Amino acid sequence: MTTQKFSAISAPYKAILLDSYGVLRNHRGLIPGVVETVERLRKEGKVIRVLTNNAARSPEAAAKNLVKYGLHGIPAEEIITSGATTRHFLTHKIQAGKVAYLGTPQSAEYIFSAGLEAVAVADVDMARLDEIKAVAFLDDEGYDMNHDLNKLINLLRRCQVPVVVANTDLLYPVSANDVALATGSIARLAEYVLGRRFVSFGKPASQMFQFAIDSMAGQAPDLTPADILMVGDTLHTDILGGNTFGVSTALVLSGNTQPETAELEIRSSGILPDFVCSSIGD
Amino acid sequence: MTTQKFSAISAPYKAILLDSYGVLRNHRGLIPGVVETVERLRKEGKVIRVLTNNAARSPEAAAKNLVKYGLHGIPAEEIITSGATTRHFLTHKIQAGKVAYLGTPQSAEYIFSAGLEAVAVADVDMARLDEIKAVAFLDDEGYDMNHDLNKLINLLRRCQVPVVVANTDLLYPVSANDVALATGSIARLAEYVLGRRFVSFGKPASQMFQFAIDSMAGQAPDLTPADILMVGDTLHTDILGGNTFGVSTALVLSGNTQPETAELEIRSSGILPDFVCSSIGD
Amino acid sequence: MTTQKFSAISAPYKAILLDSYGVLRNHRGLIPGVVETVERLRKEGKVIRVLTNNAARSPEAAAKNLVKYGLHGIPAEEIITSGATTRHFLTHKIQAGKVAYLGTPQSAEYIFSAGLEAVAVADVDMARLDEIKAVAFLDDEGYDMNHDLNKLINLLRRCQVPVVVANTDLLYPVSANDVALATGSIARLAEYVLGRRFVSFGKPASQMFQFAIDSMAGQAPDLTPADILMVGDTLHTDILGGNTFGVSTALVLSGNTQPETAELEIRSSGILPDFVCSSIGD
Amino acid sequence: MTTQKFSAISAPYKAILLDSYGVLRNHRGLIPGVVETVERLRKEGKVIRVLTNNAARSPEAAAKNLVKYGLHGIPAEEIITSGATTRHFLTHKIQAGKVAYLGTPQSAEYIFSAGLEAVAVADVDMARLDEIKAVAFLDDEGYDMNHDLNKLINLLRRCQVPVVVANTDLLYPVSANDVALATGSIARLAEYVLGRRFVSFGKPASQMFQFAIDSMAGQAPDLTPADILMVGDTLHTDILGGNTFGVSTALVLSGNTQPETAELEIRSSGILPDFVCSSIGD
Repeated sequence: MTTQKFSAISAPYKAILLDSYGVLRNHRGLIPGVVETVERLRKEGKVIRVLTNNAARSPEAAAKNLVKYGLHGIPAEEIITSGATTRHFLTHKIQAGKVAYLGTPQSAEYIFSAGLEAVAVADVDMARLDEIKAVAFLDDEGYDMNHDLNKLINLLRRCQVPVVVANTDLLYPVSANDVALATGSIARLAEYVLGRRFVSFGKPASQMFQFAIDSMAGQAPDLTPADILMVGDTLHTDILGGNTFGVSTALVLSGNTQPETAELEIRSSGILPDFVCSSIGD
Repeated sequence: MTTQKFSAISAPYKAILLDSYGVLRNHRGLIPGVVETVERLRKEGKVIRVLTNNAARSPEAAAKNLVKYGLHGIPAEEIITSGATTRHFLTHKIQAGKVAYLGTPQSAEYIFSAGLEAVAVADVDMARLDEIKAVAFLDDEGYDMNHDLNKLINLLRRCQVPVVVANTDLLYPVSANDVALATGSIARLAEYVLGRRFVSFGKPASQMFQFAIDSMAGQAPDLTPADILMVGDTLHTDILGGNTFGVSTALVLSGNTQPETAELEIRSSGILPDFVCSSIGD
Repeated sequence: MTTQKFSAISAPYKAILLDSYGVLRNHRGLIPGVVETVERLRKEGKVIRVLTNNAARSPEAAAKNLVKYGLHGIPAEEIITSGATTRHFLTHKIQAGKVAYLGTPQSAEYIFSAGLEAVAVADVDMARLDEIKAVAFLDDEGYDMNHDLNKLINLLRRCQVPVVVANTDLLYPVSANDVALATGSIARLAEYVLGRRFVSFGKPASQMFQFAIDSMAGQAPDLTPADILMVGDTLHTDILGGNTFGVSTALVLSGNTQPETAELEIRSSGILPDFVCSSIGD
Repeated sequence: MTTQKFSAISAPYKAILLDSYGVLRNHRGLIPGVVETVERLRKEGKVIRVLTNNAARSPEAAAKNLVKYGLHGIPAEEIITSGATTRHFLTHKIQAGKVAYLGTPQSAEYIFSAGLEAVAVADVDMARLDEIKAVAFLDDEGYDMNHDLNKLINLLRRCQVPVVVANTDLLYPVSANDVALATGSIARLAEYVLGRRFVSFGKPASQMFQFAIDSMAGQAPDLTPADILMVGDTLHTDILGGNTFGVSTALVLSGNTQPETAELEIRSSGILPDFVCSSIGD
């Protein structure tokens, strides 16, 4: 399997979409060469957006988080999170009322900024379920699985309200070798035992790609999918999502997909990135 | 479960998206009142688009088909098919070469209009598989299941090329009581036995909704999802797709969803239309 | 949907297999009429076995539990638990060593009685994973989901050992209206995120029915499936399992399947009990 | 990954269960050394049974088929087919009436020998569906997929009768490189579009292993699972089934599992054979 240098791959594109974890940084910190690469892309006049399936924090907080790691070049306006697409849905579909959520208070910001009232599942009054207008899976942290999952299952058996999943990732890396269950896996568990399908956001679904295009329209009018390169470390979210949306895709081997298994994963999944490179720092 | 008159439901919206089968017509022909309703919507200055998961024919042929049934008011430019989104994908992702397909020659038009060469799976030379650059599931008719499915399975085991599914519907009605396997079910069978995921188009995926918005931009600039009503007869495609995209949704009971089971299906699936009405002719 | 009296249904059979929760007792205690029914079955010379998907306690403890509820007629030898089938597997497939488990210390008795050493997942030394020879999902209680699930996922990513699931139930009732996630749902979550299939025990799988027949061979030699009636409250475990094994099946409406929804559930699942009755106390 | 000679592996066991295709023969004919191995096993006083997921023909016809390939040592009484377990189910659960089937007339023998009337789906009178008491998926050949699948889907939507699947295999090899859709994949398609689960027979389900033990009881009383070795070429049927039942398992590399990918498949599936050998002829 041939890898190419990212600088060569990215040259012809007008806009670059970057996944965050596994592309910009990993558990050790910023991936070597990322700062220089972002500077170079800007010098080349390319538009940049970061697309992350992480709904744990607002774009503002996400931008601050990148700065903490040493990457100063990405303002909040250039960060598209699956929380934003979730908020967009809640804004349009839920007029008013309470949204029960699993996640941290910080992730609940996405409900507040939709003009709704956020209630942690743990705090829901089961005698007043008529107040609950929607349910949101926002983050895998911030609640007690031992109590809140059962409470949520029972709430959903009685409430027929829209359920949104802000992050469909199943696992995320917490160290070089270890992973943890992500929001998506907990939501899948609930879907499975209830026999229901929730409304899911985050790559590979198209909304974040569309949000990105809409957000770049000012800087780069007349942008077509052919002008855009999506760079990600995960085949079934970043690459499948980018391919389906019609943009070009580059898989990096600095995150979820290891160099040793990349070729096998590509062949067995049938998800084919247009390019493969070691990392964007290359 | 309360149903409302479509004329009342539709009044506040600037744009109406209509599913075709089950909304405009059924196996018996045009649904009563549809001609008058379409005229009324136009008089009210609303923009109309027909969104169909049917990739069996081009928009031009689909428009002619509606005329044949007695509906003259819908030109080809107002018909968005999943074949169009499939063609869009092929245009951007496949530079040149042959695309093997399951479907009728008429459905293969979507491959030709993408500038590629279409080859029915039955005609593929298994000794020259390097010529095949993509595979497309276009229609459930036009091929021999007894031979072509096995041939396709073996082709896909050897070829690592993108596979697109133009229509994810599992079943479609052929009479008042009977259904037939649709393209989506055959594609799911192949995904299942190969352990792969293909690239799927058609509601509930977002691309057709986005295509619709882009196509209406000329007539109705500044259209937001809140201005749009999606009308469909199938919960897990039309309504789920519309809800996820952020438009308002109306379920009609003139197609796939029967009046007797509608409330149960809505409650058990958790897919909640904003409105329910008997038909758009009401 | 016709229901019949259990006394009439059971008359022709030589052996009766009874599910425990939902048939003998529920959250309120012993189901009315159960004591008299068990006495009558014995007077009629029938052989009785209790088949329970609960691996939380040994048959001895399960018998004591029934006595606590007021049912004295069922000795430990007549109780077949999925824990027993799990122990049988471990006895034959794992020669020696440690078995990591999720569950209570009481459930771990099934590992000890297989001659192996049981280690709670929380206590596993991740630096000495070579000592772990198998993993067992025994009970939904007794561990901290917030920590132990992630630890188990990481253990399984590194250890290629057999994984057994003693109870495939997804949910179990904790009160009149509420349910809780059962062991089976947690195991399904792990199977899903790892892309693996574990070895599962408990109805509807055949081993418990076979264990029951083997255990009754002394009292009733030449017993054939046609002589046996399985009585359960859950279609997809008790009834599907009994039907597949070839015994006759009776669904009771005193547990998981409500009178109001029974007919619909039977029709939509295609799982058809031979008989339906309100409860065995009838 | 270490392979061992089959003669060494098999020595300690009293009974050997052999899968047929991929173990005794393949598309080229009898696997080299099989005749000598079967003779040796008999000289050593071991009991032999052939366990095949093929319900296409009776054990008598299967025995004749093996003779045709050059293996004379296996009488019909030693061949356990999934068709036999299917017939066992029909015998006990369906009193009388017609069983609609997909398959060849030869496979329908399993229905006749259950004392019932077999009707090919193509011949079912849709106006007299009350006569149909069960449906059986017996073989992937013998019917026209283009017509009979849709007819079956519509029959099942109207008939609430038990549905049995005699062979859960998804694919089977037709040549060195090619496969064909097997009965199991067609049944899965129907389950999927109907949202139902059928009653399935064939490895890895336990019934065939139990049938084998019951059938060997005469020759080898007091046989325990520890005395038995299951030999198969497919992890998720032969090996998973054998492991779950509690017998020892040996994976051969002369069929579905290739030497190059065996280790990867074992690791990724988590299905662990006790032994691996090139073929039983080794």
